[in-house]
Amino acid sequence: MGVIRSIARAAGRLPKNYARIGDDVAVFPSRRGDVVFKTDMLVEHTDVPAGMTYRQAARKTVSMCVSDFAAKGVRPEAFMVSVGLRRDVGQSQVDGLAAGLRDASRKWEIHLVGGDTNEAEELVIDCAMIGFAQRVVRRRGASPGDVLVVSGPFGFPPAGLRILTAGAKASPGFSRKAVRSVLEPAPDLDVGLALAPFLTSSMDSSDGLARSIHTLARESGVGFELARLPMGDGVGTFAAANGLDPWPLVVEGGEEYVIVGTVRKADLDEASGAARKAGGRLIPIGSATERKGTVVLRERGVMRAVRDEGWTHLR
Amino acid sequence: MGVIRSIARAAGRLPKNYARIGDDVAVFPSRRGDVVFKTDMLVEHTDVPAGMTYRQAARKTVSMCVSDFAAKGVRPEAFMVSVGLRRDVGQSQVDGLAAGLRDASRKWEIHLVGGDTNEAEELVIDCAMIGFAQRVVRRRGASPGDVLVVSGPFGFPPAGLRILTAGAKASPGFSRKAVRSVLEPAPDLDVGLALAPFLTSSMDSSDGLARSIHTLARESGVGFELARLPMGDGVGTFAAANGLDPWPLVVEGGEEYVIVGTVRKADLDEASGAARKAGGRLIPIGSATERKGTVVLRERGVMRAVRDEGWTHLR
Repeated sequence: MGVIRSIARAAGRLPKNYARIGDDVAVFPSRRGDVVFKTDMLVEHTDVPAGMTYRQAARKTVSMCVSDFAAKGVRPEAFMVSVGLRRDVGQSQVDGLAAGLRDASRKWEIHLVGGDTNEAEELVIDCAMIGFAQRVVRRRGASPGDVLVVSGPFGFPPAGLRILTAGAKASPGFSRKAVRSVLEPAPDLDVGLALAPFLTSSMDSSDGLARSIHTLARESGVGFELARLPMGDGVGTFAAANGLDPWPLVVEGGEEYVIVGTVRKADLDEASGAARKAGGRLIPIGSATERKGTVVLRERGVMRAVRDEGWTHLR
Repeated sequence: MGVIRSIARAAGRLPKNYARIGDDVAVFPSRRGDVVFKTDMLVEHTDVPAGMTYRQAARKTVSMCVSDFAAKGVRPEAFMVSVGLRRDVGQSQVDGLAAGLRDASRKWEIHLVGGDTNEAEELVIDCAMIGFAQRVVRRRGASPGDVLVVSGPFGFPPAGLRILTAGAKASPGFSRKAVRSVLEPAPDLDVGLALAPFLTSSMDSSDGLARSIHTLARESGVGFELARLPMGDGVGTFAAANGLDPWPLVVEGGEEYVIVGTVRKADLDEASGAARKAGGRLIPIGSATERKGTVVLRERGVMRAVRDEGWTHLR
């Protein structure tokens, strides 16, 4: 479709110091430092699985923006929402929507400063978020030798989605955790802010692990060799019990809200300590190589290509 | 429905110097002056009349935000768009959409800094816009004796909508002008910026003339007495030819992109000069009174109440 490409072309040449379109967030200069600006739209029929309430949908929309700010190491300051509501929506749903916005505003300490409401044929929520930063971690910036890190394990949202919508079986404990990761995604804002000084490149993983790693590789002009997959506890068991290949769940699943980035080898210990202090963790999973664009997993001596595949919305 | 009210409640108490939710734009402080922030959503089935292209729809969405910035006297600096597209959309529509964004970006000299695309069941475009200002003209601020002014005549969009969708008859010249006001709304950004130093209160008129005047009255704690209606040339003839009452076309129609505001009597001449210099004009139509919330038209000695009625989207 090339919608983003068409829009980027429409934008024409941006002034110096403006980030070019296509990074996770827009960045442009002001006297207070860089303005960081992001919008993300949630649409009912593609983004709201069965079982998700209006409260959770509203909270998720804000999460989608917070996730990008976290990966860029930028504290968001304010957000607005534009809402499209079906004509038959009830007061309890409107109240739920407001409650979800309040949940997000409190959890991440971001001011909700306004909104716009409209009638639509399905629920649509668009979140626009602003922050200010002296430095924004970009997608480009990784050098060969840098350690590839993630801020958490992968595989819970794809498993949760299968439990919610395809009747996949799971233990109660795993099911609770996986379903919760879908209905109430929790991007690691504190961890992202704590890691910012150490990250040489970074992005969130809403399009899946493989897509994120390939994007960092492409933008930074490096390759990556993974030593392990950051598979969530129980994801392997869940896959086996449901006759599923765990690889796509962990590598190609989407709607993950984990930070994928790189740090210099010498900074790894300090960065790990910073992540722990912020209540999270940093998992090293490989390192950047000079083989531009090549992403492989070397596990127990066997090499496997990690293809640039994953979750794709309409582009 | 109280959606905006619910959202405002969800926002809780905002810090000092943050504008409370419900003005035309959100305002919060930064070292570069106030940050002015606005989102507005266009939804196909309510905002896109028959005959409007994707290019025009995209341009209109940006116009909706520009209109608020114009009325607040603030130069917008950057915008982003989130787009929801039907699955069956074609490349020419995507290109049209991009062209409409480019049109708007060039016309008002605002940088398009990013976007997000999604699949949706109807066309949805959300525009989020940012600017910085030392002063933002608010809705409150009118004092008794101030002159009520508008930046242009009213009635073209409601007439144009009836020509487009209900087969109303009109001369070719009037039809062209009225239809164009619907398909390619052109908020007076230069005029708004030129008027800003003189406006004691102001807002745009996207909900219609009566709604705007009543809102300024309510927020400023004044009333208004109108000496004339700012009826567009030919609107009376159009109404008569189609058996329509011109009053609702001029007073209660919506989707107008005209600035409605107040200036001190002593500033009227200078403000008019500034508007003319910016390529527009300032039409005085009445004055603020002490009768809080009361809006009347006194024409040829006859008083008529101007009720708080107009264009209403789902609220």
